[in-house]
Amino acid sequence: MHDGHGERSEVAGSEDRVRFAMKALVYHGPGRKAWEEKPRPVITRPTDAVVRIVTTTICGTDLHILKGDVPTVTDGRVLGHEGVGIVEEVGSAVMRVRAGDRVLISCISADGTCDLCRRGMSSHCTNGGWVLGNTIDGTQAEYVRIPFADTSLYPAPSHVEDAALVMLSDILPTAFECGVLNGQVGPGDTIAIVGAGPIGLAALLTARFYSPGDIIVIDLDDNRLETAKHLGATHTVDSGREDAGRRVMELTGGRGVDVAVEAVGVPATFDICQSVVAAGGHIASIGVFGMSVELHLERLWSQNITLTTRLVDTVTTPMLLKMLAAGALDPTPLVTHRFRLDDIMRAYDTFANAAEEKALKVILAGA
Amino acid sequence: MHDGHGERSEVAGSEDRVRFAMKALVYHGPGRKAWEEKPRPVITRPTDAVVRIVTTTICGTDLHILKGDVPTVTDGRVLGHEGVGIVEEVGSAVMRVRAGDRVLISCISADGTCDLCRRGMSSHCTNGGWVLGNTIDGTQAEYVRIPFADTSLYPAPSHVEDAALVMLSDILPTAFECGVLNGQVGPGDTIAIVGAGPIGLAALLTARFYSPGDIIVIDLDDNRLETAKHLGATHTVDSGREDAGRRVMELTGGRGVDVAVEAVGVPATFDICQSVVAAGGHIASIGVFGMSVELHLERLWSQNITLTTRLVDTVTTPMLLKMLAAGALDPTPLVTHRFRLDDIMRAYDTFANAAEEKALKVILAGA
Amino acid sequence: MHDGHGERSEVAGSEDRVRFAMKALVYHGPGRKAWEEKPRPVITRPTDAVVRIVTTTICGTDLHILKGDVPTVTDGRVLGHEGVGIVEEVGSAVMRVRAGDRVLISCISADGTCDLCRRGMSSHCTNGGWVLGNTIDGTQAEYVRIPFADTSLYPAPSHVEDAALVMLSDILPTAFECGVLNGQVGPGDTIAIVGAGPIGLAALLTARFYSPGDIIVIDLDDNRLETAKHLGATHTVDSGREDAGRRVMELTGGRGVDVAVEAVGVPATFDICQSVVAAGGHIASIGVFGMSVELHLERLWSQNITLTTRLVDTVTTPMLLKMLAAGALDPTPLVTHRFRLDDIMRAYDTFANAAEEKALKVILAGA
Amino acid sequence: MHDGHGERSEVAGSEDRVRFAMKALVYHGPGRKAWEEKPRPVITRPTDAVVRIVTTTICGTDLHILKGDVPTVTDGRVLGHEGVGIVEEVGSAVMRVRAGDRVLISCISADGTCDLCRRGMSSHCTNGGWVLGNTIDGTQAEYVRIPFADTSLYPAPSHVEDAALVMLSDILPTAFECGVLNGQVGPGDTIAIVGAGPIGLAALLTARFYSPGDIIVIDLDDNRLETAKHLGATHTVDSGREDAGRRVMELTGGRGVDVAVEAVGVPATFDICQSVVAAGGHIASIGVFGMSVELHLERLWSQNITLTTRLVDTVTTPMLLKMLAAGALDPTPLVTHRFRLDDIMRAYDTFANAAEEKALKVILAGA
Repeated sequence: MHDGHGERSEVAGSEDRVRFAMKALVYHGPGRKAWEEKPRPVITRPTDAVVRIVTTTICGTDLHILKGDVPTVTDGRVLGHEGVGIVEEVGSAVMRVRAGDRVLISCISADGTCDLCRRGMSSHCTNGGWVLGNTIDGTQAEYVRIPFADTSLYPAPSHVEDAALVMLSDILPTAFECGVLNGQVGPGDTIAIVGAGPIGLAALLTARFYSPGDIIVIDLDDNRLETAKHLGATHTVDSGREDAGRRVMELTGGRGVDVAVEAVGVPATFDICQSVVAAGGHIASIGVFGMSVELHLERLWSQNITLTTRLVDTVTTPMLLKMLAAGALDPTPLVTHRFRLDDIMRAYDTFANAAEEKALKVILAGA
Repeated sequence: MHDGHGERSEVAGSEDRVRFAMKALVYHGPGRKAWEEKPRPVITRPTDAVVRIVTTTICGTDLHILKGDVPTVTDGRVLGHEGVGIVEEVGSAVMRVRAGDRVLISCISADGTCDLCRRGMSSHCTNGGWVLGNTIDGTQAEYVRIPFADTSLYPAPSHVEDAALVMLSDILPTAFECGVLNGQVGPGDTIAIVGAGPIGLAALLTARFYSPGDIIVIDLDDNRLETAKHLGATHTVDSGREDAGRRVMELTGGRGVDVAVEAVGVPATFDICQSVVAAGGHIASIGVFGMSVELHLERLWSQNITLTTRLVDTVTTPMLLKMLAAGALDPTPLVTHRFRLDDIMRAYDTFANAAEEKALKVILAGA
Repeated sequence: MHDGHGERSEVAGSEDRVRFAMKALVYHGPGRKAWEEKPRPVITRPTDAVVRIVTTTICGTDLHILKGDVPTVTDGRVLGHEGVGIVEEVGSAVMRVRAGDRVLISCISADGTCDLCRRGMSSHCTNGGWVLGNTIDGTQAEYVRIPFADTSLYPAPSHVEDAALVMLSDILPTAFECGVLNGQVGPGDTIAIVGAGPIGLAALLTARFYSPGDIIVIDLDDNRLETAKHLGATHTVDSGREDAGRRVMELTGGRGVDVAVEAVGVPATFDICQSVVAAGGHIASIGVFGMSVELHLERLWSQNITLTTRLVDTVTTPMLLKMLAAGALDPTPLVTHRFRLDDIMRAYDTFANAAEEKALKVILAGA
Repeated sequence: MHDGHGERSEVAGSEDRVRFAMKALVYHGPGRKAWEEKPRPVITRPTDAVVRIVTTTICGTDLHILKGDVPTVTDGRVLGHEGVGIVEEVGSAVMRVRAGDRVLISCISADGTCDLCRRGMSSHCTNGGWVLGNTIDGTQAEYVRIPFADTSLYPAPSHVEDAALVMLSDILPTAFECGVLNGQVGPGDTIAIVGAGPIGLAALLTARFYSPGDIIVIDLDDNRLETAKHLGATHTVDSGREDAGRRVMELTGGRGVDVAVEAVGVPATFDICQSVVAAGGHIASIGVFGMSVELHLERLWSQNITLTTRLVDTVTTPMLLKMLAAGALDPTPLVTHRFRLDDIMRAYDTFANAAEEKALKVILAGA
């Protein structure tokens, strides 16, 4: 107690803590997570950056990880692959961002040099891809190391709110690339979006860039359908109350839809898509599937349909940033809850009870 | 003999027969067909043509019909949707062919005016599509009425043999559009063609227009694999002797193929396609499926794949005719057997025992 | 007066007039036109329709014809290639419209059967193309014969006003296909439209289907620039008051535009386009040029640009009709003046003095 | 002679020379070049590599530089932007090549991280592009520093000859991307290639990947036309002996060509292209133009043509390497002369007198 040295030592420890430690949300096997102390990340390769997290969020995938469904995530991993932050330090090869820059962190780390990156398929980057909060430590922490910073961070437009910006880490490019671009939505098209969670609603927001005609959104949750209406759905279908496939066929005069966007990832929602797609139409699958589905080729073989799957490549992030900065894209209706970063355990509870909590995206703000 | 009246009557009958009757292959319900007399077709609409058949052939679909698998085909229907012939007569609105012209008959009758035809999807033409030998009388006959003659008949290049030409009625545009174009085969690509029947081999012939690198052909029939080698396959895999999926992955260094062409139409061959398609690759389904398949979205959801189905639209028939006329496309290796048209019952037997008979396409020559 | 015969004869003549004659705007060589009596058109081919004109309009091309600039138009020709009307009679091969139908008349007559139509290039249709008011009598008349009615007329949505609908005969598909589609306008793009006449404004209206970012419209006429602002231009440039090329470069931070739409057809406006197009950008030429231009390949050779020209193919007319019917496209701001059809001589005067009259499109309503 | 110190000093100098100096072809202003000593390049950024040149060649652009036509090239610059070599050393951020690797040097240095590289337009890379032998020292030297090595060097297939490989530094991707891809050459197309120099012939070689029908090659030099025939031209036209435009129209039955590839870069050859392009066709300009051209929009405005320009982006280099390695692309007929690297002054003389020397590409082999 009167050991001055010890006190100083504690002070020194506190300084060290400030410099070398941080708090982070750490996975400890199925069902177990903790907000605990971890060493602060450092530059390990010349292409790295270290970023101080200002804002992050929780993704449905994080819930899958916590159930133990993603075997690549192991005990001790810091979760999270979405974020906005301030660059602390960059490696010697980094050209496009520097310390002090406010940046958007992409959920995809792209080396920018492999064959797949150069073909625009960074989702399958040989040295990157979805690694954050998966095979390397992620963004639900005070600091994060971002590999390939030049091709994985984006300078943030100054006047855009963090909560809106962080929606561009993952859900907006995912919904846009996997749903809207792959679905080839065009002016006047009739489209169905199956699932009105954050991804489905992000597909709705970005589908509107192409002026589709009828936009039919299908979900079980009336609250989410209400949000869909607010964001531009021309029709909503509560698939808990009626046969969604039949209803869509009625709404389209028996013709079906030009584009069916699958934004859930289970056989039942996939079935809706294949039952409503018109001849010549597209099924654009965004959902993360945990099991196989039955594909009705006995009917579809002759229907000239195109079915696509995709892990987001984030090739459209610059365009989405431009639309966001110009006010032509407003993702704030997707943000329903806000917490402090050190309150993340409670944020997870809220997000895990999305229906009751009427939660879409849950924002976490750093100190 | 001295019954003058009777004789004259017979003569008159014979003349009538010449003018008003013909022989045709008629479907009489599952398992029943006959080469029998039918009224000769006449012009019923101003856009019709009547064509005298010079050459026709039998399609795998005809065997399906005979099994009773195609409910739109009813008792009394003349079968056949492929043919080369001489125009006998045209309706008042027909501009592009005239009596005496040698023509290729397309398996797709396209009205040329509906929204779907104008979008290039004549397979689903509102007033046409695949109707010949299905909902109207077909080409396995001495004469056939062709609706929408201007958009369903093609003047034949003079120096091309009928047997080669008739391959452009169906299997070449089908294999090319549904397999090669939908698969987006490109220079240097690695492709797998699953099924080395006439359609698979036609896919092989036309894939070569785009200079793919490795072309792996998979079948159970060594004779067909031999033909595939002869037509340019760089590798063949006998799926009866080895695990075809595993073999293709070995051949591609674990990478898989850019394009997998499904040319059979059963779950087992579809499975090979989905097990060998590389990330970012295409599965182009040509096969006519009689049952659903299991689609492994639990793996493929993140693999950026594109799966297409298509009934042939015949939009590429003019280009294929040009290639044929220029000698840049030679489908004659697909022709294994030739019969006289009135020997069609025997031709059906041969085609139905394709493996034993080493049959691919069976040609029928009119009088 | 008491010459009963003569009276009856006159009555008969009047009846004949009702049945066999009509009034029409007839070209009589450079600078000469008249609203005069002509025989009423009749069905001449089974694919024809005769349409009673309800609404028509005057196109800039009609002014060119009157100057003698279009040598294919000869003395005696009824002018006009735009119109809405009621079908009077159809030929025996016509399937898609019938007497009594209210229809949109396309400026392009498409036979639907030639190679070019089937490739989607009806502008160069072997038997049609732009023939109305050019090589056959046109729509500035009480009646018009429309060849290839099934592929040249479109049933009109019931609740759309004629004046809006007639904008889809020519200027909307022209601006959309030649300007917006050829220019490949996409979300967030910066575009410049050079010329704010009816075509330029129609390009502006339809470019918005793709959610471009900055839309810069350039013209000499402040009134038209004001309309452009009203229709969604984000910036306007008066090229009479400032160097338009320099101004566009300033507005784009020196980068230039992704798409430059040329909507005038003279060297000076083409020059603006080539001076502002960014590397990788598009120049989409809609203008009807009467002379050659200087193309600065000494600079552009390395700029990865794409320059397109196009006569409208009207392949997008069905989509535009859908957007119009859905209220997602409102061309009425392009309509500035309305006349009765028999007042067409005065309407021509107004349209010929567009700047003073603040005229864009001049509508003519039949009896 | 008995000055030991001096001797040692000379020895030391010689060692230094081996380590720190090299010979290089240096530009000294218009008309002046020398094969002289220069400091050997070193790694200056973590993304650099230093490569020892094994094979290089001379490009038409080098002759332009020597005339003083390229103002970005200043006195003292080492010329050359093509090469095959052995990596000597790499910077700390380089992942994909290492010391000892035999590599192809791309004429385009791509940072891989800027917006333009990520859009596939490395020709306009913010930090790179065509810099070698232009704004930084090039490959006509014993050693060269390559910036952004991971995205500017390609591991060489082991069994491909250097002289063939070096054709992929520039002329093959240039001809393929700017001529064949931009021209959208397809199966059965009729194409004209104007200019049978190395670039035109490389366009011919790579156009054949897409199985065009008629390939018409136009030049003034009979020797080059002979080579074109040998490489697959179906027709050749000597534009010195006949009106090339008229001849092409005759050869195409008055229809013109689907694709006209401009491979020279002067108004006369551009004129041939615009006079022979069919409605709906493409003019793909590869040529480096030193002056503007007259574009006949008074005729072409309605012809639905597409005109493209492009500086090579080298996005197809991996595919071309694959085709080369597979034996599906053989550029060796383009190599007409071989010299030792230190004989480069003589090689320039030969290349500068290409017609008399019957020279296409001149290969320089390092020690």
